[in-house]
Amino acid sequence: MLLDHVFLLTTFDWLLLESSAFRVVDLTHSQGVTTLYWPGNVDFNFTILARGQTENFWLEANWFGTAEHGGTHLDSPSHFSQGQWRTHQIPPSRLIGPGAVIDLKPQAIENPDYRVTIRDLEKWEQSHGRIPNGAIVLINFGWAHRYPNRSLVFNTNDTENSTTFHFPGIHEDTARWMAANRNISIVAVDTPSVDSGQAVHFPVHQIFGRNNIPGVENVANIDALPVTGSTVFVGVIKLFDGSGGPTRIMALIDDPCQNNGANQLSNGLPFLAFALLTCLLNKY
Amino acid sequence: MLLDHVFLLTTFDWLLLESSAFRVVDLTHSQGVTTLYWPGNVDFNFTILARGQTENFWLEANWFGTAEHGGTHLDSPSHFSQGQWRTHQIPPSRLIGPGAVIDLKPQAIENPDYRVTIRDLEKWEQSHGRIPNGAIVLINFGWAHRYPNRSLVFNTNDTENSTTFHFPGIHEDTARWMAANRNISIVAVDTPSVDSGQAVHFPVHQIFGRNNIPGVENVANIDALPVTGSTVFVGVIKLFDGSGGPTRIMALIDDPCQNNGANQLSNGLPFLAFALLTCLLNKY
Repeated sequence: MLLDHVFLLTTFDWLLLESSAFRVVDLTHSQGVTTLYWPGNVDFNFTILARGQTENFWLEANWFGTAEHGGTHLDSPSHFSQGQWRTHQIPPSRLIGPGAVIDLKPQAIENPDYRVTIRDLEKWEQSHGRIPNGAIVLINFGWAHRYPNRSLVFNTNDTENSTTFHFPGIHEDTARWMAANRNISIVAVDTPSVDSGQAVHFPVHQIFGRNNIPGVENVANIDALPVTGSTVFVGVIKLFDGSGGPTRIMALIDDPCQNNGANQLSNGLPFLAFALLTCLLNKY
Repeated sequence: MLLDHVFLLTTFDWLLLESSAFRVVDLTHSQGVTTLYWPGNVDFNFTILARGQTENFWLEANWFGTAEHGGTHLDSPSHFSQGQWRTHQIPPSRLIGPGAVIDLKPQAIENPDYRVTIRDLEKWEQSHGRIPNGAIVLINFGWAHRYPNRSLVFNTNDTENSTTFHFPGIHEDTARWMAANRNISIVAVDTPSVDSGQAVHFPVHQIFGRNNIPGVENVANIDALPVTGSTVFVGVIKLFDGSGGPTRIMALIDDPCQNNGANQLSNGLPFLAFALLTCLLNKY
């Protein structure tokens, strides 16, 4: 039967990947003794168990200990909302999705206490189409280059006093709008918190938690992503009963047949098929 | 210019994903107090820092400590080979690749000390085509359902004495062949070691290490993968100077236009285009 033998989409993907048309972007800061935590957590403990030549072979092995919420990490919904998903309960289908990058660097430069507005998202959608179902939304405040400098990331001289923190985040009205009106799998930020530094009682954490929307914080390297056209993989440690955990977050970028594909869908299937062929024939 | 507006491949992917034609498979055992280690490691330490109602919000937060090499985890090349990649040095492009599933369950049932032969791989390639460049090879010994029962996984009554272990692995000749003749990014197994339980001095670890091929061990749920037609993400914690670490490994499976796509490539582009259209038209 024909359908047993028809083409597999991802074969195209890997054909392109092997011809270096696809790129992988790592959005993760390294975890280790420099890992940055919210005040009150003990530092990362990295202990060497073995590093050297044994009688028969070279051997390296280490132990580490860490609070869940440090460095590039995920906040499970249970972190701020009773009964919502703990880390191991987040459905795997929520951990992979199309990246949607919101660039708010100019706003954050002008005002380090900036909070994302509903209007910011509406403007984004006017240019790039509706935030796709299952999106991993990545908000780029231009904050990642400050990491792991504690004073720069928290933007204060008093890094143990969180009431002095000044970094941008999401407005609670915007969080409510996102939860109510779009089907977003995860919201990632390059700051230490989805709430701004000056937020009181972490309202955005609470709203996202109630709606089973995990956050990812201290994300690196969002500058390397296109606005759309990436597939983002959120590899949080599968910590049993965790409220979060260290996360390997990476993206697969789908050049070369650029970039505003979501919009092209509205042109319908014949156009898509033609465009796909054009793209492939152009490539080979 | 046309190429600025042509179709983005991944739009097809997400179109299919939103229509539930794509599936995400989690290949990871949960990490926690049941995490299984090689003898000599201390157990997983999971410590609750907060779990309850504060004055203004619900709060959960935890701390954990673990040896790198427990549960579903990656072995960095430096684990058994001096100067090779430590965990944070593994190129991200090696952590995403096409899955190639080798099923050796019957062999492992017949002989728990079974070691993968070069012939096993040659036979696989006769049916499914050459192991693709950048492959994540996943070897299914049918061992995952034993996890985390220590006696069953190590297949011994003396779980603290590794000379008594009887579980399958890879033959050192096969490891050499894989490193020399194929471009494999990662080798994953559902047993606790790429070396078999009875191996002496971990030769496969040494060979893979020298060739900068990470291993992933105690992988779950390989039965849920097709032989080919998956994209595998290996989300190892980005541990600075690590010799490995806990790993979130997941796969994106590309139904519905099944499954032996790699072979179809040999039919050439016109067939591919036709098959793709057939597949899409069948779907909508």
